[in-house]
Amino acid sequence: MSGHDTVSGSGGSATLRPLFAPRGIAVVGASRRGVKLGAMMAGSLAGYAGGPVLVNTRNPDRAAGVYASVGEAVASTGEPVDLAVLCVPAAACAAALTEAAEAGVRAALVCAGGFGEAGEEGARLQRDLARVVAATGVRLLGPNTSGFFVPAAGLTASFVPGAARVPSGGIAVVAASGGVNHALAFELANAGNGISLAAGIGAGLDVTAADVLDYLAEDPLTTAVALHVETVPDGPRLVAAVRRLSAVKPVVALVVGRSDVGDFARSHTGALATSWRVTRAALRQAGAVLAEEEGEAVDALTALSRLRLAPAADPGLGIVTAQAGPGLLLVDRVKDDGIRVPDLTGATRERIGDLLPPLTYQRNPVDTGRPAETFPGVLRAVADDPGVDLLAVYALTEPGSVDLADAVGAARVSAAVVAVGGLAAEAHEIRARLHEAGVPAFGTAAAAANAVRALVADARARHIATHPATGHVVTDLAATGRTMTGFSATGRTMTGSTATGSTATGRAVPGSAVSESAAAGSGVSESAAAGSGGPFPVTVGGVGAMDEAEAKDLLDRLGVRTPERRVCADHAEAHRALRELTGPVAVKLLDAEVTHKTEVGGVRLGVRDPAELDEALAALDAAGARRYLVERMVSGGPELVVGARRDPVFGPVVLLGLGGTAAEALSDVAVRLAPLSAAEAARMPDDLAGRRLLEGWRGGPVLDEHRLGGLLAALGGLLAASPSLEEIEINPLRLTERGLVALDAVVVRARTETGGTRDVEDTE
Amino acid sequence: MSGHDTVSGSGGSATLRPLFAPRGIAVVGASRRGVKLGAMMAGSLAGYAGGPVLVNTRNPDRAAGVYASVGEAVASTGEPVDLAVLCVPAAACAAALTEAAEAGVRAALVCAGGFGEAGEEGARLQRDLARVVAATGVRLLGPNTSGFFVPAAGLTASFVPGAARVPSGGIAVVAASGGVNHALAFELANAGNGISLAAGIGAGLDVTAADVLDYLAEDPLTTAVALHVETVPDGPRLVAAVRRLSAVKPVVALVVGRSDVGDFARSHTGALATSWRVTRAALRQAGAVLAEEEGEAVDALTALSRLRLAPAADPGLGIVTAQAGPGLLLVDRVKDDGIRVPDLTGATRERIGDLLPPLTYQRNPVDTGRPAETFPGVLRAVADDPGVDLLAVYALTEPGSVDLADAVGAARVSAAVVAVGGLAAEAHEIRARLHEAGVPAFGTAAAAANAVRALVADARARHIATHPATGHVVTDLAATGRTMTGFSATGRTMTGSTATGSTATGRAVPGSAVSESAAAGSGVSESAAAGSGGPFPVTVGGVGAMDEAEAKDLLDRLGVRTPERRVCADHAEAHRALRELTGPVAVKLLDAEVTHKTEVGGVRLGVRDPAELDEALAALDAAGARRYLVERMVSGGPELVVGARRDPVFGPVVLLGLGGTAAEALSDVAVRLAPLSAAEAARMPDDLAGRRLLEGWRGGPVLDEHRLGGLLAALGGLLAASPSLEEIEINPLRLTERGLVALDAVVVRARTETGGTRDVEDTE
Repeated sequence: MSGHDTVSGSGGSATLRPLFAPRGIAVVGASRRGVKLGAMMAGSLAGYAGGPVLVNTRNPDRAAGVYASVGEAVASTGEPVDLAVLCVPAAACAAALTEAAEAGVRAALVCAGGFGEAGEEGARLQRDLARVVAATGVRLLGPNTSGFFVPAAGLTASFVPGAARVPSGGIAVVAASGGVNHALAFELANAGNGISLAAGIGAGLDVTAADVLDYLAEDPLTTAVALHVETVPDGPRLVAAVRRLSAVKPVVALVVGRSDVGDFARSHTGALATSWRVTRAALRQAGAVLAEEEGEAVDALTALSRLRLAPAADPGLGIVTAQAGPGLLLVDRVKDDGIRVPDLTGATRERIGDLLPPLTYQRNPVDTGRPAETFPGVLRAVADDPGVDLLAVYALTEPGSVDLADAVGAARVSAAVVAVGGLAAEAHEIRARLHEAGVPAFGTAAAAANAVRALVADARARHIATHPATGHVVTDLAATGRTMTGFSATGRTMTGSTATGSTATGRAVPGSAVSESAAAGSGVSESAAAGSGGPFPVTVGGVGAMDEAEAKDLLDRLGVRTPERRVCADHAEAHRALRELTGPVAVKLLDAEVTHKTEVGGVRLGVRDPAELDEALAALDAAGARRYLVERMVSGGPELVVGARRDPVFGPVVLLGLGGTAAEALSDVAVRLAPLSAAEAARMPDDLAGRRLLEGWRGGPVLDEHRLGGLLAALGGLLAASPSLEEIEINPLRLTERGLVALDAVVVRARTETGGTRDVEDTE
Repeated sequence: MSGHDTVSGSGGSATLRPLFAPRGIAVVGASRRGVKLGAMMAGSLAGYAGGPVLVNTRNPDRAAGVYASVGEAVASTGEPVDLAVLCVPAAACAAALTEAAEAGVRAALVCAGGFGEAGEEGARLQRDLARVVAATGVRLLGPNTSGFFVPAAGLTASFVPGAARVPSGGIAVVAASGGVNHALAFELANAGNGISLAAGIGAGLDVTAADVLDYLAEDPLTTAVALHVETVPDGPRLVAAVRRLSAVKPVVALVVGRSDVGDFARSHTGALATSWRVTRAALRQAGAVLAEEEGEAVDALTALSRLRLAPAADPGLGIVTAQAGPGLLLVDRVKDDGIRVPDLTGATRERIGDLLPPLTYQRNPVDTGRPAETFPGVLRAVADDPGVDLLAVYALTEPGSVDLADAVGAARVSAAVVAVGGLAAEAHEIRARLHEAGVPAFGTAAAAANAVRALVADARARHIATHPATGHVVTDLAATGRTMTGFSATGRTMTGSTATGSTATGRAVPGSAVSESAAAGSGVSESAAAGSGGPFPVTVGGVGAMDEAEAKDLLDRLGVRTPERRVCADHAEAHRALRELTGPVAVKLLDAEVTHKTEVGGVRLGVRDPAELDEALAALDAAGARRYLVERMVSGGPELVVGARRDPVFGPVVLLGLGGTAAEALSDVAVRLAPLSAAEAARMPDDLAGRRLLEGWRGGPVLDEHRLGGLLAALGGLLAASPSLEEIEINPLRLTERGLVALDAVVVRARTETGGTRDVEDTE
């Protein structure tokens, strides 16, 4: 929204130091008493570096130390003021900020509302304020936020009462909402954590969440970051910041908007909420761990601020429980979350067998019964198991028995989370001592399960980030992208050779350089013929459309297999095609102008012999056909939908879903930002609830996820490289015994070349 | 497992009084000192009614008050002993219980393991103990539990240290596991609640969860009940107990076993876990509110122990928030949970408009900004709105501003949940005062959302329980059940008239008395013909199978529509059928012995004219056909799967799922116990994730859920009334513009009439 939104890296980080570590603070609109904002802010800030200077233009009171301007205060005290906290009405903010900037202020906080969310007059005031920000280079947090606080520095730029009592520690909170900023900080503190910085972004006129994340990447106090997201004004910028930060510190993201909360959300932030699904996918892809609700976020941060697993594709969890029932709750949850709980090795079980009576379960989880002096030995044995990367422990407090904090300490386990059940008084004390020892501690099996999920999700995300090139990469993304740029400029560039109507050039060309992946294994022309091929409308915006054969040639060049086919100019060519293709064929009206062939009777399926073909051709002629597409039918199998489109906030994304109406109604879709590597895309099926369908369901074909990854990467690469392309969708993409085959597709060009209703600019 | 498992109602309740409210207690195997179980139990029980008498057969010590037997203790003290707490090894329990019973003991607690879960020797000891229980009528809790406690009575029959310090209050815990019993009680206490009774069932040799639930229905202290379930030995008994209890007190159920935890679970309880899905469905149907994890259960109980909404089909929620961000988290969650958040009426908004500045959002949620003196008035106005049945409030603690407990009190709102965010010290104090005032209070928006979901789920369940007869009931269940009993006895009784091969009797008979629902609207014979009908194998166990026409006649009589059809003895009859049915038909081999017609080439679809029919008949003849079924094709539409089967634990259940492989892979299935009313079954589609498919998805047909409910009720009634029927499945059941049509079905008879591998006895 301002000239600052391209700030990044250490330069951006440095510009936030006057905001979060100012040499001096002025409260503008301050008073010494009362419950108004200015008085409360003055009170909150009294503890920081000698206290703020107070400024009140309308009621200056030099005797009481209330100056008429920031300039007067600086001149009078001789001390620099980096941060101005503006506690004046919205209409007075622009002028106050101008004066402050002239006095040397380099950062400002505006808590008040009454700007962009408040109608046309508010929008005008916001523009005025933005102009001052742009002109002066002052970094401004807000408006419409309850502020920020830095406990270690005693800096409380917040009017919420408890903020000053939040303990210092390693977790930073960056929240879209000032209220959530405080609520999360309080809950984190209640769970035994301290805060390094907590900031509410509010309207985000200048300083955005991305800016603060960049600052935190270099903040030595911060060990983990909570990110609360409502709306995203700067998708690629936020993704880049999360990617940089998560490489060095874990990020846990809580994204609002699962249900339709748009109306209230808009009233709150003055901005349009983007897709919850895409926002979550983008943040996860950038390395953030997603939390479903506040409690889960607190559990994740309690763990990740103290412990980060080594990057791993699938870390193994060892579980030791002193009570079988809660242990069962824990293993049920983590297994449901897809966490691997490996059987312990024989050697480990022998070690444990020496420590525990034979009646308890000792495979994983290990049920110790009431903890005894052997408890540390059991913890150590499980943690030492070669399949175990993380240890989870559950025990009720047993004051008269083993001291759990001492026992975990004695076990010297490097990666463990511990749940200690019990009444708050005694359980809190043990958890606090575990925290002092750097061991994340919780109160319930469910909370420990949340912690495990977060630690494993973080390790997996870093494994993907650091091992992007595993797997079989099918398609040369860069080459495809270059080729397709030409296509997108005219909409027809690549289709000249197939527009002749020649059956020779109209064929799929397995074995050619650009469709090597399609030719791997046996060509689709060898597939058994049965089932049905769907209609195949291809649309390329208002400036012209591709016909089905041209579109399928385009897919061939992208490395996407299509049914073997012939473009036929007349009945004789169609009969030749039927002979050559052998077996049931689909016969379709071929005309770029007809986008809904099925609806006009332009598709006939299962044509087996010359008589049926004549009947089909007559029907197509009646529907207005001048050319025909004859193609092999493709045998049945599960159907996928793959596509690439432009998200209005995050730019190019690729999507993968299961096909068929049932799957569509279930919205079972995986999303990733594009461009992405084939290896990264190859993991998208893991996100699908119905992924079993692709794993040889009922004896059916098994998906080669690396080939699918190559296809998705190619689609994403094409869209990312072609600003004028709006959307590509292959629906259905059928999984057959011989691989994936595209039966239908839609290509949409951007409505206008220069913008229009959707932003189609290349975002990277 | 014992003679007691049919105990129910007040008789059963009364027999647990010696256990939970004993006149005197003996600890058998006690000692005055040490950390062994006997010593710890003696210590725990010291606070109850003058303390337990101590018994130690091996080391009696009359001087120290340790008797050689319970009989000696009773004779010596002259005081009755109702409860014996056995702290002796498993091998000594049967003898100790016999002696105790002879001395007048009527209840016992056995904490030790070493019984059913411990191999053959343990199983023998368990049988010995069960024989004593059966012979003496003593009620026994355990073995393999950490006991129970009744805080109001100072009765702590538990060796877990914190148990004695759990405060007294209205929530009872009935847990499969002793560990979970304590963990839940502690967490409930930590959330500001007190406990009436907390009991761990353990192995459940005698006293089961159902017994304790019956006791709690009459316990005046108890206002809500937590039920933790691992395995269910007595499905119908548990369902009946939950139904009785939930009619008078809310029940919150936490069911383990979402993932595959069978191996560890078996080691823990010695019993086979039943299906998690069916257990949850059964408990919900009986009136329990389901919780996903411990924290959610605690939130639900914190709310339901203080507040129960009036029964309602869809209660409306009003939301007032002092901070927009947390309010948005709350509304996002509750909307995702399917809670109705209605727009406030104009009158309410006028009232609020008089109290709040115009800038805040005032429709619902109502964003007050920082609470001021008008806060109670706003709460009152929203609660008074005619669309609002429950009020949810969020606010951060503001010690210097409005006192939230006072404000909520001043608003005199009868149904409200309040989330108070803040540092524990001050937020806990406010929450405690809200609890004192009977208002459920929480720390986060997520916790408040859990409470809202539980309150609404409870109100909806009671609405269903008290309004079972709403909606259009299609099928006369009782009549259908009677008719079908005859069928199940012979497997063929009802099919004689259709086995003649006559096309007249082989037809569907819309309009006849038993298939009135099928004839409602236009008959299926009028449906447009297109798409494909699937194969239709009908199997009736090993004593003979029904052919497809017979099976479809059976469905007709059940009120299930089937495609119009003709049974044809020869080619001439088939040609007549093609003429009569007009339009594409399916032609199938008709032979009760051939159960997989498609695989032997016994099905030809889309036959349009005499030439195609001759070709099809020739192919069927080659596959061995002696008779043919010719039937109309049914036009496309979403497919359902409906069925009824016997759950090994809960007895007859009905199932509804979406058809197609994708939906099957997603396991999107709704389950209910049978028999059930058509109105109750009509709500099953609400459980399906893909229910949008049935609501006119993409212009398609809209499900008549009352007709579907009638069908499901009929299937369930048939299975419940027919002990020899094992399973009925209609798959697919196609939703067309003209209603539901069964395209395929499977009927399975029980393997043996007298039991066999699956229990097929009628359970009610």
